[in-house]
Amino acid sequence: MKALLLIAHGSRRKQSNDEVVELAEKLRKNCSQQYSIIHAGFLELAQTLIPDGIKRCVDDGATEIIVLPYFLNSGRHVVEDIPEIVEQTRPHYPDVDIKIAQHLGASDLMMDLLISSANSTS
Amino acid sequence: MKALLLIAHGSRRKQSNDEVVELAEKLRKNCSQQYSIIHAGFLELAQTLIPDGIKRCVDDGATEIIVLPYFLNSGRHVVEDIPEIVEQTRPHYPDVDIKIAQHLGASDLMMDLLISSANSTS
Repeated sequence: MKALLLIAHGSRRKQSNDEVVELAEKLRKNCSQQYSIIHAGFLELAQTLIPDGIKRCVDDGATEIIVLPYFLNSGRHVVEDIPEIVEQTRPHYPDVDIKIAQHLGASDLMMDLLISSANSTS
Repeated sequence: MKALLLIAHGSRRKQSNDEVVELAEKLRKNCSQQYSIIHAGFLELAQTLIPDGIKRCVDDGATEIIVLPYFLNSGRHVVEDIPEIVEQTRPHYPDVDIKIAQHLGASDLMMDLLISSANSTS
């Protein structure tokens, strides 16, 4: 069973974290054929930290987990922090294949998203 | 003349800021028909702050500026800080129409972007 774990930074502002959880729910509705398990998790400042998110996926029966960093820039969080936490968690689940996807900002579709957002106002 | 001003948060990490400037350059290559002027600017921590970015667009001949927040969540920066700075800058350019686009995270295309990023690894 394949799981998608969306990882955001986490904010002191509850509404920002709720937006990420809602996004994971929206993904769940739209991509359940491809990913039977979808959860949200946070690097810091919010409930369900990365190890908890991974555990949640495993508890739901995941044998493969794609960790998707919901980040725009390849900053320290993307390059060091998330991979480090995933590496520390990996030995607890030797039978689960955990991969880290490219962060959002690296997507080829970013250009379309930017133009679509700009046009929504103009 | 229509301008697009991409506004990111700004980082102490130069590479993160450079990524945003490169993204603006990429936009310039791809969307010059729609936006004859394209610049990047930052909320804080980096060169070319929002008022400087707006000035740069006006100096290049912009009569309409779309300020596009390169942010994933509707946090304080998107809801308060960017609009406040734009409001403070507006009186300096009474003949320029300055609008703020929806932030990136609010785009309908976000779902496609997430799935495309997740699939890039799996």
